[in-house]
Amino acid sequence: MTQDTGIFETRSPLLLRGVCHNDRIVDVVVGDDGTIAAIGENAGRGHEYDHVIEGRGRVLLPGLVNTHTHAAMTLLRGYADDMLLQPWLAERIWPLEAHLTGDDVYWGTRLACLEMVATGTVGFNDMYFFMESAARAVDEAGLRAQLSYGFIDLSDPEKREHECRATEGLVDAVARMANPRITAAIGPHAVYTVSAEGLLWCAELARKRGLGVHVHLAETETEVADAVRATGRRPAALLDEAGLLGPRTVAAHGCWLDDAECRLIGERGATVSHNPASNMKLATGRAMPYPALKRAGARVTLGTDGAASNNSLDLFGEMKTAALLQKFAWNDPTVLPAHEALALATDCAHAALGFTGGRLEAGAPADLILLETRTPCNTPLHSAVSNAVYACSGAAVTTTLCAGRVLMHERVVPGADEVLEGATGAAIALVSRARGDA
Amino acid sequence: MTQDTGIFETRSPLLLRGVCHNDRIVDVVVGDDGTIAAIGENAGRGHEYDHVIEGRGRVLLPGLVNTHTHAAMTLLRGYADDMLLQPWLAERIWPLEAHLTGDDVYWGTRLACLEMVATGTVGFNDMYFFMESAARAVDEAGLRAQLSYGFIDLSDPEKREHECRATEGLVDAVARMANPRITAAIGPHAVYTVSAEGLLWCAELARKRGLGVHVHLAETETEVADAVRATGRRPAALLDEAGLLGPRTVAAHGCWLDDAECRLIGERGATVSHNPASNMKLATGRAMPYPALKRAGARVTLGTDGAASNNSLDLFGEMKTAALLQKFAWNDPTVLPAHEALALATDCAHAALGFTGGRLEAGAPADLILLETRTPCNTPLHSAVSNAVYACSGAAVTTTLCAGRVLMHERVVPGADEVLEGATGAAIALVSRARGDA
Repeated sequence: MTQDTGIFETRSPLLLRGVCHNDRIVDVVVGDDGTIAAIGENAGRGHEYDHVIEGRGRVLLPGLVNTHTHAAMTLLRGYADDMLLQPWLAERIWPLEAHLTGDDVYWGTRLACLEMVATGTVGFNDMYFFMESAARAVDEAGLRAQLSYGFIDLSDPEKREHECRATEGLVDAVARMANPRITAAIGPHAVYTVSAEGLLWCAELARKRGLGVHVHLAETETEVADAVRATGRRPAALLDEAGLLGPRTVAAHGCWLDDAECRLIGERGATVSHNPASNMKLATGRAMPYPALKRAGARVTLGTDGAASNNSLDLFGEMKTAALLQKFAWNDPTVLPAHEALALATDCAHAALGFTGGRLEAGAPADLILLETRTPCNTPLHSAVSNAVYACSGAAVTTTLCAGRVLMHERVVPGADEVLEGATGAAIALVSRARGDA
Repeated sequence: MTQDTGIFETRSPLLLRGVCHNDRIVDVVVGDDGTIAAIGENAGRGHEYDHVIEGRGRVLLPGLVNTHTHAAMTLLRGYADDMLLQPWLAERIWPLEAHLTGDDVYWGTRLACLEMVATGTVGFNDMYFFMESAARAVDEAGLRAQLSYGFIDLSDPEKREHECRATEGLVDAVARMANPRITAAIGPHAVYTVSAEGLLWCAELARKRGLGVHVHLAETETEVADAVRATGRRPAALLDEAGLLGPRTVAAHGCWLDDAECRLIGERGATVSHNPASNMKLATGRAMPYPALKRAGARVTLGTDGAASNNSLDLFGEMKTAALLQKFAWNDPTVLPAHEALALATDCAHAALGFTGGRLEAGAPADLILLETRTPCNTPLHSAVSNAVYACSGAAVTTTLCAGRVLMHERVVPGADEVLEGATGAAIALVSRARGDA
């Protein structure tokens, strides 16, 4: 247990001494600009450091990135499960969400950030409401995030006007924050909830402001069938026609993509965020076609979806579930091996959101995590990558750095109790307001 | 953090004060005979206790039971993954296993027991080799186990004779231990590895000695096809003809059971141990038909399989994977809800192995665990059962009791470091011996 509480505040150079990485023992020097100043055998030797993290018995990995979630839905964790999708949404989730306030979103996002820090996630791709409150939570928690307002117009021009203003409001608010860890994205919810005009407006704004796009795509068979019936075209083609399919697009789910859509996504350089636990829990009926997307050269990443449909934000669990589901769905144990599962949650995910981390090399942001090895899930240590993906949960993470700042060390996250209390209070009050309404 | 290290040694009455169970705050009094002396609101009031565990902010659950594993295979964790079944076995697993010693099995089983204690599992159903060494490890670790020698004769009479002697040897050795937590079972490996004569001999010994049966059943499509081709009958019928399908039988996997086999298992009162992570990782091609087994009234339980094919022994992960896989496989989010997933790992599993725990009531063995609630996976606490199954890993467990003995408290397991060192040394030496041989 460290006694060095100053480690959470320091901006001076920091040494991670003797951590295990790729079967070698290396030092990592974190510069005062939040990047990796040096990494390598004895790279820290010959200098004095105000703060040293002893890495003996620790595995070094890049910090993980969650490419699809609705962070504030942590407040709904365990509120309703094991139901058919429509009654689950209409009877349980939407009535509660109707009572959400900006304060709720702040506390729900703080709770999500705490869970992510504690399980080794350093950044995420979020879509929800009251996103200025989410931005404040991310700012305070010290993580990276790409934040989008969930644009839903249901083909109603008046609603569309409202959604356009809300989207612009978030983009401007994030610009005003000038926090290099926080970016805005445009969040057209899906082709079945946003009109053609709405999709075009979103594409235009993303292009004009140089922003990413966060969208749901081909999650259910119904979504695809409805699109084909209404327009004669499948959802990926509709996004592409609107100009929404490009290198800065993250499309979540993709369960029902066909081969042509996989090729289209690959050609456009877009990303599909795989969310295996949510897809299995809600029984989407088909696994995202990872082999076809890989053949097409599309970028694939990992997300947890919101805590109402998972119900965890621990990407270690998600890496394992992804590897297991893909093997099972395509009947081949060689599909999505451990090192690819780790890549989906690290370098692929950082790149998809325009982050420059995910690589452990000099000059890259110091977004990194340490895992305990003196614990059953890392014993024996035949393969650190296999253990990380198949044996460990996020509970193996002892230390989390984002942009060079220590967010957790020896499993201590400063301020955790306040977040747990605030989020508990917000969740109880939310349910109570919804009950009063019923 | 408790300062009360005597708590690990005490046999005197122990009070768990103010734990949360079924949304109520209760006391649990553990008697010096290892059973629950009293449970209820203020049940501990008015007496003095040498040792008190403060339960505020802790959820009480029955200890979990793992109904199919090969515990010592922890030594092979992460040694080989993501391969087709045959080369995985023939090129990686079997060559290593050929070098196993009794000492290896002792350390591998100690490591498995440590992992189980740390993740809230109080008992398990084991099948492997050098099982006297496994029995010694279980005895020292303080868990419950039903231990079977993996009987494989490959229709060779000489081999069969050897397997009969090894099986009897284990049964006698366990009887001599006279440890009420440890029982022997008969372990005919599977219908494709044991001759008809071998199956009959196993059934006869199980009947004569009043012991359980632990067998693999219908794991792969090939197993079923081969049985039908060779005998005209499916594997469950072959077990039944040999007299191996009864109330004390635990058949692992069951992925390829058809409806008639599910009904037969239900009629015989036998148990099927679901091992979803292993089945998905090895791509067995079909999920165990839980809905059909449930309709047939068969008992279903949960297992992790060995750490080479999972690679974790954390039943919290397995509960979630089971619930997710069953929903996905049968395309229905209402299949295997959270409370059933918990039952599979608790009361159903205790009963399947002839243990009398799994229920939290006076007179039952004090096999119980406490979960931390001041942690993200249990925040908010809309449903303790949903959080246990869908949000938490075994890392949420702070305290584990088996037969009234405290095996872990505040996440401290006495002797853990020695086990991690011993198992690491054994694993490294094993790989080195196998390399020297190659």
